[in-house]
Amino acid sequence: MKKIAVVLSGCGVFDGSEIHEATLTLLALSKNELEYECFAPDKEQYHVINHLTNEVSKEKRNILVESARIARGKIKPLSELHASDYNGVIFPGGHGAAKNLSSFGYATDNYEVDNEVARVIIEFHESRKPIAALCIAPVLIAKVLGGKLTIGNDKSTADKLTKLGANHIDKDYNEVAIDEKNLIITNPCYMLADNIYKVYTGVQVTVEAMMGLIKK
Amino acid sequence: MKKIAVVLSGCGVFDGSEIHEATLTLLALSKNELEYECFAPDKEQYHVINHLTNEVSKEKRNILVESARIARGKIKPLSELHASDYNGVIFPGGHGAAKNLSSFGYATDNYEVDNEVARVIIEFHESRKPIAALCIAPVLIAKVLGGKLTIGNDKSTADKLTKLGANHIDKDYNEVAIDEKNLIITNPCYMLADNIYKVYTGVQVTVEAMMGLIKK
Repeated sequence: MKKIAVVLSGCGVFDGSEIHEATLTLLALSKNELEYECFAPDKEQYHVINHLTNEVSKEKRNILVESARIARGKIKPLSELHASDYNGVIFPGGHGAAKNLSSFGYATDNYEVDNEVARVIIEFHESRKPIAALCIAPVLIAKVLGGKLTIGNDKSTADKLTKLGANHIDKDYNEVAIDEKNLIITNPCYMLADNIYKVYTGVQVTVEAMMGLIKK
Repeated sequence: MKKIAVVLSGCGVFDGSEIHEATLTLLALSKNELEYECFAPDKEQYHVINHLTNEVSKEKRNILVESARIARGKIKPLSELHASDYNGVIFPGGHGAAKNLSSFGYATDNYEVDNEVARVIIEFHESRKPIAALCIAPVLIAKVLGGKLTIGNDKSTADKLTKLGANHIDKDYNEVAIDEKNLIITNPCYMLADNIYKVYTGVQVTVEAMMGLIKK
């Protein structure tokens, strides 16, 4: 049975993993009989957003502890993720990808990617194992590897990734950008989908494309 | 377009709504072109559980604020939910149903149901509109209405509901108990399903059964 690592970044679209994208990633993996394990960095979130009022809260929360809510407790620190144990890795979206896994959300012109996240991306890349990223999470790959990818059709975001040397191509919610050379699969999810069923459509084509690349 | 109310109880299986069950409920509604709106009680959670260590935390969290994470901010206080505005109501599971929407989780022999939750169940029942409950959430209906329902095949839980006057029937993860008289639909979800795809199977049959009852 093929085994996929899923990297979470908290629990909630505005300060962590987008819950629908993360859950539907697990669903699509399970539907396709792929085993999965969840990982997240064991460090404090950039901030906590009250998802009812959209205001920044004074609370402190830990990315791994909050991600454990999506993973039903079955999750490990990102430092324990090694490409040798998995056939591929997926990064769901949400502001957590842009605030906890990188600084893209608040330092877009010269953002950095978390060291452990960068290590994981490089390890999978060097092992010739596919890397998938949803929604805004392709910014992680653009910074670390470059490559052919999509975040949908938002010109301002796309331009920033192009400046880093990535090759951005516009894609709709139900399409994936596939970089056959670097084994990168990206899909816009909630960057373009206006309902949860459209998100699932995008996640499904992403997982199917990943299975195609694993076979090669 | 038919409109369904979804009642959440926090965000995380051990102290709130089970995230997969809640998300897959929204997915199944969206897939079937049913509109939905989310609601949750605007009050403090019974407690906060660290989902990594399973320990009780000292934090205080609000049920509505945390549920907003699953609903991507689009949620209203349960006090604003009226049966006249909707064609049906669904209660996903998770310990939140047993700790935040009722006291079943810590006072099983003589548990109470939150007043607003009880009002909502009675309103939908008196309006002859279907009420669905997943996983452990049927305990809410057993206490308020009785009726024919399932929580899977756990004898000790089933016996408690039978003592209240409910008619418990064993069902598997992919089956629903349908009370045609009282328009109650129940499915075991994670009470029996051992993976997320099986949960989605149960949620789908639940939503399909609800559509059948709405038509009548």
